[in-house]
Amino acid sequence: MQKEMNEILTSIRWNELDHYGRNFLLTWEKSRADLEATLKVAEIFRALHRQGKSFRQFDTGIAVSIFRDKSTRTRYSFASAADALGLSVVDLDEEKSQIAHGETVRETANMLSFLTRVVGIRDDLYIGQGNTYMQQVAEALDLGFSEGTLHQRPGLVNLQCDIDHPTQSMSDLAMLCRHFGSLENLKGKKIAMTWAYSPSYGKPLSVPQGIIGLLTRFGMEVTLAHPEGYDLLPEVVTLAGQQAEASGGKFELTHSMEEAFQGADVVYPKSWAPFAVMQKRTRLLSEGDRRGLTELEQEGLAQNRQFSSWECNESKMALTKNGRALYMHCLPADISGVSCEQGEVSAGVFEQYRPQTYLEASYKPFIIAAMTFLMTVPNPKNQLMSLLKT
Amino acid sequence: MQKEMNEILTSIRWNELDHYGRNFLLTWEKSRADLEATLKVAEIFRALHRQGKSFRQFDTGIAVSIFRDKSTRTRYSFASAADALGLSVVDLDEEKSQIAHGETVRETANMLSFLTRVVGIRDDLYIGQGNTYMQQVAEALDLGFSEGTLHQRPGLVNLQCDIDHPTQSMSDLAMLCRHFGSLENLKGKKIAMTWAYSPSYGKPLSVPQGIIGLLTRFGMEVTLAHPEGYDLLPEVVTLAGQQAEASGGKFELTHSMEEAFQGADVVYPKSWAPFAVMQKRTRLLSEGDRRGLTELEQEGLAQNRQFSSWECNESKMALTKNGRALYMHCLPADISGVSCEQGEVSAGVFEQYRPQTYLEASYKPFIIAAMTFLMTVPNPKNQLMSLLKT
Amino acid sequence: MQKEMNEILTSIRWNELDHYGRNFLLTWEKSRADLEATLKVAEIFRALHRQGKSFRQFDTGIAVSIFRDKSTRTRYSFASAADALGLSVVDLDEEKSQIAHGETVRETANMLSFLTRVVGIRDDLYIGQGNTYMQQVAEALDLGFSEGTLHQRPGLVNLQCDIDHPTQSMSDLAMLCRHFGSLENLKGKKIAMTWAYSPSYGKPLSVPQGIIGLLTRFGMEVTLAHPEGYDLLPEVVTLAGQQAEASGGKFELTHSMEEAFQGADVVYPKSWAPFAVMQKRTRLLSEGDRRGLTELEQEGLAQNRQFSSWECNESKMALTKNGRALYMHCLPADISGVSCEQGEVSAGVFEQYRPQTYLEASYKPFIIAAMTFLMTVPNPKNQLMSLLKT
Repeated sequence: MQKEMNEILTSIRWNELDHYGRNFLLTWEKSRADLEATLKVAEIFRALHRQGKSFRQFDTGIAVSIFRDKSTRTRYSFASAADALGLSVVDLDEEKSQIAHGETVRETANMLSFLTRVVGIRDDLYIGQGNTYMQQVAEALDLGFSEGTLHQRPGLVNLQCDIDHPTQSMSDLAMLCRHFGSLENLKGKKIAMTWAYSPSYGKPLSVPQGIIGLLTRFGMEVTLAHPEGYDLLPEVVTLAGQQAEASGGKFELTHSMEEAFQGADVVYPKSWAPFAVMQKRTRLLSEGDRRGLTELEQEGLAQNRQFSSWECNESKMALTKNGRALYMHCLPADISGVSCEQGEVSAGVFEQYRPQTYLEASYKPFIIAAMTFLMTVPNPKNQLMSLLKT
Repeated sequence: MQKEMNEILTSIRWNELDHYGRNFLLTWEKSRADLEATLKVAEIFRALHRQGKSFRQFDTGIAVSIFRDKSTRTRYSFASAADALGLSVVDLDEEKSQIAHGETVRETANMLSFLTRVVGIRDDLYIGQGNTYMQQVAEALDLGFSEGTLHQRPGLVNLQCDIDHPTQSMSDLAMLCRHFGSLENLKGKKIAMTWAYSPSYGKPLSVPQGIIGLLTRFGMEVTLAHPEGYDLLPEVVTLAGQQAEASGGKFELTHSMEEAFQGADVVYPKSWAPFAVMQKRTRLLSEGDRRGLTELEQEGLAQNRQFSSWECNESKMALTKNGRALYMHCLPADISGVSCEQGEVSAGVFEQYRPQTYLEASYKPFIIAAMTFLMTVPNPKNQLMSLLKT
Repeated sequence: MQKEMNEILTSIRWNELDHYGRNFLLTWEKSRADLEATLKVAEIFRALHRQGKSFRQFDTGIAVSIFRDKSTRTRYSFASAADALGLSVVDLDEEKSQIAHGETVRETANMLSFLTRVVGIRDDLYIGQGNTYMQQVAEALDLGFSEGTLHQRPGLVNLQCDIDHPTQSMSDLAMLCRHFGSLENLKGKKIAMTWAYSPSYGKPLSVPQGIIGLLTRFGMEVTLAHPEGYDLLPEVVTLAGQQAEASGGKFELTHSMEEAFQGADVVYPKSWAPFAVMQKRTRLLSEGDRRGLTELEQEGLAQNRQFSSWECNESKMALTKNGRALYMHCLPADISGVSCEQGEVSAGVFEQYRPQTYLEASYKPFIIAAMTFLMTVPNPKNQLMSLLKT
């Protein structure tokens, strides 16, 4: 184990990394070396944890979280990653704060960062806003550090925005590496990122966007499938195509779940709201148009119902490679007959793959810890070496 | 002190313990050896704390709390016990989480346990539900550990359910050991666990049930007193009788507060709602019957008012052994003329025993720390030995 | 740096200090030696932090916070100070607690202090109540410690009450020492603590009271300026006058912002509600008179609007010494054209001094850590000496 960990450590391209003092907002803003380093450090942390060893880095320090949407697992993952590194979480509850006073983002970001090592933000409700807000925070942190207000430049982690969900997609990637043995082995593997039916409405687009925006970089054959009208952000779709070409993979779009499942090594069936609906919703929300919102929700649910056959079930799974593709989900899934009458996945398929979905989720704390570690520890290689020696 | 602590440590029947990787849900599910070990470890931790010494066990790690009812002291006790062992608390606020999505208990329990050492749950509002929920969480943790999702099996502590309140009753037991000098000395001591009047309604039954379910095991003469119609869970009453017989103690039931106080060494006057009312309330809550609930509350308060003479006051205390029984309460008490017009205890009696009630409460953090320690540290004896050496 | 820090340490008048086991409620209850020691320890902690060094003091322990008003920066400052010393924060959310049961302050204070090192309280909404509440908590902590319920006497820090805001005023004082080079250099410097217009209502008086109550002790020439009718607490105004006389400074009152700015070295323009309005508001709140409160708010806002010319802008700044007085604010400021149409300060002036206001705020975590350190560490000098050696 020790030897294996040392090999992983040595295989990281330390000279090419550009993490320290940076942000982790969109995976496609990070180099391949950066992504690989994140995966590898997460793997080392996870191995240490399995051995009951601590990978604490800091004696004291703060991790600030800002959740602008409900969250269980990401909140827990961020808190446990922070704790594992030796940081205490301060959660900015905007209801209990004075933010409403018209305070600027620049000011809030500085006021919450004097002793802070990392800031994690979830802001995924409004199209065009979450990532923009995170960029403003990033600029404020740069400014505060350059002006000397902040003695250290905190890392900034996107815990889900309107565009990407990098802690999820990187955990998914870690799970795929585990499943297929290595990152290299992903080449040529076929993954179906498909829409699935849910009796709910307004689910963010960041997971499917994150998946196609990340996995196309590793030579995978990514098929995006959704009913007509459930488009993702056009920029991300375009990017996915370009990345697939560059990496020697494929990126295809279809409007048939069955077609996407055909021969797939991996399936990722997950509901989301159409981009156009999310845009309209964002506008109505900003206008405070309650009636419009209720109507839009009714329309959205009715639109969804037309595609209730988009369920991942035994017959669809039979279409996949040898009938045993890996089923993935960011959880919680809408399970037919369990959490809803009819949903994204049949109870049988979900239960068969349940332990794998739990494993998939279990990578998240280690991924967040790795991101934070690489952004905030000035000499990460030496730190890891001394960790592995103990 | 050092020597005394070492004697306590040596007196623990280490070979008989069955704590590691287990839960602490109902005291009557634990062996006498387990209960004694918990008391003794708590005593060692408390002694270390008095000396200003740390009994930290973990470098990092998470303690998850789930409070389904309001709490001040238990919330604080859990948090300070966690901190004392080196753990950071993540509180699952179900309103801020995605639990409402129809997620299963199994899934939530796993998602919140990747780096978790202990889970504490308060769920005491609904008859038939709190303990059931905790058992589901326990099974989920077993499953997650056996499937490899969890690298360690977190301990699970009942912070009050519909049946028992073991962190309270064990703190009470610690207080009794202190008061009478030892666990052995409790034999033959008479304790009156009696209902008392309160102008509020719907108080849980877990404290009186916890007391009769625990103290009957140590040869005490336990008298349960309440007005007719204020019965406890029949199973627990039956169990208390059986345990008293087995331990050489007594268990009696009376409908007179005075009779119970007669010659008592200890009195524990405390309000609770009748079991039948709690059952009806649970049903109305599940049906969302607001009108029914309001009517039930009015009935409950009116019923209570018939028994407003059930107050622990100077004249009742005069009936106890030498007129100076120990007065106990889990706090906060409804104090006549202080927190309400007329309540469970007169201001004079409460003030006389106030410092003792505070001491009684002060054991809780150490009890919770001891439970957690024994459930999560693989070699507790060695750990304590090295703690005592420093 | 090392040498400089050692000189600061040696310059503290250790024998005159009376911090240990005490409270920090009002700056004027503390001796000059105590205030200087707080500033100096904060400076040492800040220097260590800039060097990336920990000043952790405790292995484990709890810091309890009680916020009875919204807060972002003070909440963060308290949490990060606690963490830096090695303490975990338990926040008493009175809505989630059982406080409403009519529990006494004495009881709550004890129940939350068994393993607690410091308690921080914000209670600034009601005239005549915040400081009174803190005094009750202080007495309860003394009692609990003397009765043996508490094994250690937690420190108590006023995080803003109706009378003073000492963590703010001490941070401001630290900023002034930095700006003018030393505490000694403050002698004869002129500061204008002036009211400023804000389109909001009901802002506490504790900041201006804290400033005049602290800075008059160091030989500064303090001018308090506000429109007629916006008086502060008479006792504090009287005290400021006495202190100025004793310290060889000046304390003057004017109703002209321009007059106060004339030749000032420092300006502190900040809105507050008139004392009389706050008193009326406190009464209406206790009576639950919603209509009266709405009317009072309308009156207050209308009264404010008469003084909308009380804005700190370029032309007013031109009146100050060499036109470049230091602009101070406790933040968040009401910035004209940024956070409101017209407010306390013009956008140009604020932006010019923004980095300084951020620096001013950045002292707060170190000030709170220093207060806590001096109240809770029995041998602070030795502790600091060993910190500086590492």
